[in-house]
Amino acid sequence: MEFLVGSVWAAAFAIGVAAFGCGIAQGLGLNGAMAGIARNPEAAGKIQVNMLIGLALIESLCIYALVVAMILLFVHPAIGPAVATLGGH
Amino acid sequence: MEFLVGSVWAAAFAIGVAAFGCGIAQGLGLNGAMAGIARNPEAAGKIQVNMLIGLALIESLCIYALVVAMILLFVHPAIGPAVATLGGH
Amino acid sequence: MEFLVGSVWAAAFAIGVAAFGCGIAQGLGLNGAMAGIARNPEAAGKIQVNMLIGLALIESLCIYALVVAMILLFVHPAIGPAVATLGGH
Amino acid sequence: MEFLVGSVWAAAFAIGVAAFGCGIAQGLGLNGAMAGIARNPEAAGKIQVNMLIGLALIESLCIYALVVAMILLFVHPAIGPAVATLGGH
Amino acid sequence: MEFLVGSVWAAAFAIGVAAFGCGIAQGLGLNGAMAGIARNPEAAGKIQVNMLIGLALIESLCIYALVVAMILLFVHPAIGPAVATLGGH
Amino acid sequence: MEFLVGSVWAAAFAIGVAAFGCGIAQGLGLNGAMAGIARNPEAAGKIQVNMLIGLALIESLCIYALVVAMILLFVHPAIGPAVATLGGH
Amino acid sequence: MEFLVGSVWAAAFAIGVAAFGCGIAQGLGLNGAMAGIARNPEAAGKIQVNMLIGLALIESLCIYALVVAMILLFVHPAIGPAVATLGGH
Amino acid sequence: MEFLVGSVWAAAFAIGVAAFGCGIAQGLGLNGAMAGIARNPEAAGKIQVNMLIGLALIESLCIYALVVAMILLFVHPAIGPAVATLGGH
Amino acid sequence: MEFLVGSVWAAAFAIGVAAFGCGIAQGLGLNGAMAGIARNPEAAGKIQVNMLIGLALIESLCIYALVVAMILLFVHPAIGPAVATLGGH
Amino acid sequence: MEFLVGSVWAAAFAIGVAAFGCGIAQGLGLNGAMAGIARNPEAAGKIQVNMLIGLALIESLCIYALVVAMILLFVHPAIGPAVATLGGH
Amino acid sequence: MEFLVGSVWAAAFAIGVAAFGCGIAQGLGLNGAMAGIARNPEAAGKIQVNMLIGLALIESLCIYALVVAMILLFVHPAIGPAVATLGGH
Amino acid sequence: MEFLVGSVWAAAFAIGVAAFGCGIAQGLGLNGAMAGIARNPEAAGKIQVNMLIGLALIESLCIYALVVAMILLFVHPAIGPAVATLGGH
Amino acid sequence: MEFLVGSVWAAAFAIGVAAFGCGIAQGLGLNGAMAGIARNPEAAGKIQVNMLIGLALIESLCIYALVVAMILLFVHPAIGPAVATLGGH
Amino acid sequence: MEFLVGSVWAAAFAIGVAAFGCGIAQGLGLNGAMAGIARNPEAAGKIQVNMLIGLALIESLCIYALVVAMILLFVHPAIGPAVATLGGH
Repeated sequence: MEFLVGSVWAAAFAIGVAAFGCGIAQGLGLNGAMAGIARNPEAAGKIQVNMLIGLALIESLCIYALVVAMILLFVHPAIGPAVATLGGH
Repeated sequence: MEFLVGSVWAAAFAIGVAAFGCGIAQGLGLNGAMAGIARNPEAAGKIQVNMLIGLALIESLCIYALVVAMILLFVHPAIGPAVATLGGH
Repeated sequence: MEFLVGSVWAAAFAIGVAAFGCGIAQGLGLNGAMAGIARNPEAAGKIQVNMLIGLALIESLCIYALVVAMILLFVHPAIGPAVATLGGH
Repeated sequence: MEFLVGSVWAAAFAIGVAAFGCGIAQGLGLNGAMAGIARNPEAAGKIQVNMLIGLALIESLCIYALVVAMILLFVHPAIGPAVATLGGH
Repeated sequence: MEFLVGSVWAAAFAIGVAAFGCGIAQGLGLNGAMAGIARNPEAAGKIQVNMLIGLALIESLCIYALVVAMILLFVHPAIGPAVATLGGH
Repeated sequence: MEFLVGSVWAAAFAIGVAAFGCGIAQGLGLNGAMAGIARNPEAAGKIQVNMLIGLALIESLCIYALVVAMILLFVHPAIGPAVATLGGH
Repeated sequence: MEFLVGSVWAAAFAIGVAAFGCGIAQGLGLNGAMAGIARNPEAAGKIQVNMLIGLALIESLCIYALVVAMILLFVHPAIGPAVATLGGH
Repeated sequence: MEFLVGSVWAAAFAIGVAAFGCGIAQGLGLNGAMAGIARNPEAAGKIQVNMLIGLALIESLCIYALVVAMILLFVHPAIGPAVATLGGH
Repeated sequence: MEFLVGSVWAAAFAIGVAAFGCGIAQGLGLNGAMAGIARNPEAAGKIQVNMLIGLALIESLCIYALVVAMILLFVHPAIGPAVATLGGH
Repeated sequence: MEFLVGSVWAAAFAIGVAAFGCGIAQGLGLNGAMAGIARNPEAAGKIQVNMLIGLALIESLCIYALVVAMILLFVHPAIGPAVATLGGH
Repeated sequence: MEFLVGSVWAAAFAIGVAAFGCGIAQGLGLNGAMAGIARNPEAAGKIQVNMLIGLALIESLCIYALVVAMILLFVHPAIGPAVATLGGH
Repeated sequence: MEFLVGSVWAAAFAIGVAAFGCGIAQGLGLNGAMAGIARNPEAAGKIQVNMLIGLALIESLCIYALVVAMILLFVHPAIGPAVATLGGH
Repeated sequence: MEFLVGSVWAAAFAIGVAAFGCGIAQGLGLNGAMAGIARNPEAAGKIQVNMLIGLALIESLCIYALVVAMILLFVHPAIGPAVATLGGH
Repeated sequence: MEFLVGSVWAAAFAIGVAAFGCGIAQGLGLNGAMAGIARNPEAAGKIQVNMLIGLALIESLCIYALVVAMILLFVHPAIGPAVATLGGH
């Protein structure tokens, strides 16, 4: 069934690319935070709070993609009939 | 049904690429904010406010793509007939 | 119907790529604004005003793409007949 | 009808890629303007004026692409017959 | 008609890619001009004049592409017969 | 069975690309942490704590992709019928 | 007629890519000129003269591509027969 | 058997791309550690500990991909039937 | 006739890519010259002479490509028979 | 036999890409170590030890890929039947 | 005749890509020379001599490609029969 | 015989890409070593020793790829039958 | 004859890509030499000697590719039969 | 004969890509050596020796690829039968 092939590819594409980009984004933010704490250790508290807010926002972008991937794999209304078709083939 | 394959791919492409780009964008903004707080901790309040405004605007771009992905998966007027076709195949 | 596949792909491409680019653009602008406020906190008001003008202009570019995507999905004159064809298939 | 597929793809490509590039361009300009105001707040007026001129010129490039996309979707002389063909299929 | 598909794609490619490149170019120029005015506000007049000359030259490159796109869509001698063929199909 | 080919490719794509991106991200963060400790050894404790938080968040992104890959390989509802089809071929 | 498709694509490719590259080139030159005038306003005259020479040379490269595009669209000896073939189809 | 081709390609893709990315990541981290030790040799102990933690985390990402590759080559439930099919061909 | 399609594409590729690269090259050279004159206005004469030599050499590279494009369009010994074939089709 | 083609390609891809990435990674690390020894020759011992640890870890990534390539070429359970098939063709 | 298509494409590829790369190379060299003369005008003679040697060597690389392109278009032993075949078709 | 085509391509890919990457890696290391010796000539001995260790490790990566390429061309168990098949064709 | 198409493409690819890379390499070397002479004119002799050694080595790489291209076009043992086949077609 | 096409392409790919990468690598090394001699002319002897060692190692990588290309063109055991097949076709 071609639909299932498409949906697994699409799910893998979404989560793979989103993890790639958000990973690099968190790496950039973390890099900045590390440099900031080393430069000004007394501001470590404020930096940590903002870093966590920022990382959480970036994480949320990746979770959107994860949600879409999960929908493609389990919730999409065409999954049921497609699997049934495959089974009864 | 080829239409369903296209719509799941398109949804995954939209959310994946948008999450990639917006993630890197938030990473850049977060990087700048971290560096800014470390450099000038007394301005942390102003920086935090503007950082949140900026991150929210970037988040909104990704949410546009999420909305389009959701429309492609659930709201598009051709989804219903296509699933029905698949089921009654 | 191949037309519908094309239109959903095109809508996803437009919004995905535009969100990617505009997101990075807003990230660059935000980065500059963060650095600017940290460097010169008294200019924070002017910087914030100009940052919002700039981010709004960038946002507008992405909204153009969103409008085109919406037109492709709902307003385009060939959508109606195509869906009808699919339903009556 | 293959022509319609081509025209929606082309419209999406034009607006997507143009929004991508012009967005990054506006981000670069905005970045420079933010850094400039922070460095020299008394020149904020001149910088703002020139920034708006520049952003408007960049915006105009994207609007050219938007115009081409709209022509492809609604004004092109082959749209009418193609939709008619699709409807009477 | 395959020719029409090719011409709309070509027009969209030309205007999209040209807008992308010229947009980034104007962003680079604008960035330099912003930094220049901030560094040396008394030279703002000279900078503005040269910036406008440069931006106009870059704009002209994009307008060449727009002209080619318009020729492809409306003036090309094969458009008429192709549309006629499509209509009388 | 084409579905199995698609699922193994998709799993490999997801984990490969995510490991690529998250690896570079951890490298960036580690780079920043190394530079930070060398610059300000007394802040090593704070830097280490935040580095671990950041690396864990990046690791989580890659684990999302690993989970999706595992689902594609073992949990997806269409795997069973597909393998059965292959066996009884 | 496949030849016409090829020629419109080729014309669009030539002008699009050349405008992209020359645009960025003019942006680089303009950037340097802006920075130069800001740094040394008394040399503005010499800089302006050389900038115009350089921009004109870059413009000439793009005009070569425009000439080739125009030749492909109107002057190429195979255009006439191809259009005639299309018309008499 | 197309499935086996897909699985060997997928395994090679996963390990190749992951080794590429994680290698560069470890190179970045190592680069930072080398610079750090040279700058502040007394902090060499702390830097070494953190470097090893970071490198181990990056190594773990690549090992995930190696595990997926091994699963694709030896553990996947469709390998057995596929090899049997090939043998009895 | 496939040969004509190939030759127009090849001509457009040669001139487009060469204009792209030589344009950026001239932009780099111009950028350096602008910065040089601003830094040391008394050396403007020597810089201008060498800049013109360099730009002319870069221009010559692009003209080689233009010559090849013209040969492909008008001088190549297979053009005549190919156009004749098209006309007598 | 298509399977053998796939396995040799996959082995070459894995080792080629992994050697590319790990090579650049070792180059980065080596670059940092060279700079570090030149900057602080007394720390050469510590730097050398850590450099060797790091290079060994990067080498291990490439060896994973080499192992996978060797498995694909000699150990994979489908190699035997495939070669036999080819021989008895 | 497919051979002629291949040879024109190959000639255009060779000259286009070589002009691209050598152009950028000459731009880099020219950039360095401009900066060098501006920094140390008394060394302008030595710089000019070496610049011309270097540019000539780079030019020679592009001329190799031009020679290959010319061979492909006029000297290759299979051109004659191929054109004859086309003419006598 | 398609297998032989695949194996020669694979061998060329492996050695080409690996030489590309390892070459750049050695260039980076060499660059660092040159800068290091110029900065601190008394450390030239230590730098030379470490440079040779590093270059040898990078060379080893490329030799892995060379070994794989040689295996693909001469040792692979399917080469013999494939060549025999070609000869007896 | 497909073999001839392949050989001309391969020759053009080899010389084009090699000229591209070696050109950029010579540009980098030339750039460094220009900067070096400007910085330290008394060392111009040593720099010139080493520059020529380096440029000659880079040139040799491109000449290897030129030799391979010439072999592909004139010396390869399959050229003769292939041209004969084409002529006697 | 498809095998010969593959082998010429593979030889050209190997030598072209390897020359590209090794060329850039030698350019990087040469750049560093030039800068080093200019900075510290008394170390020119040591720098020259190490530069030659490094360039020779990089050259060796490209020669590996050249050897593989030559094997593909003249030594590979399938060349003889393939050429014979072509000749006796």
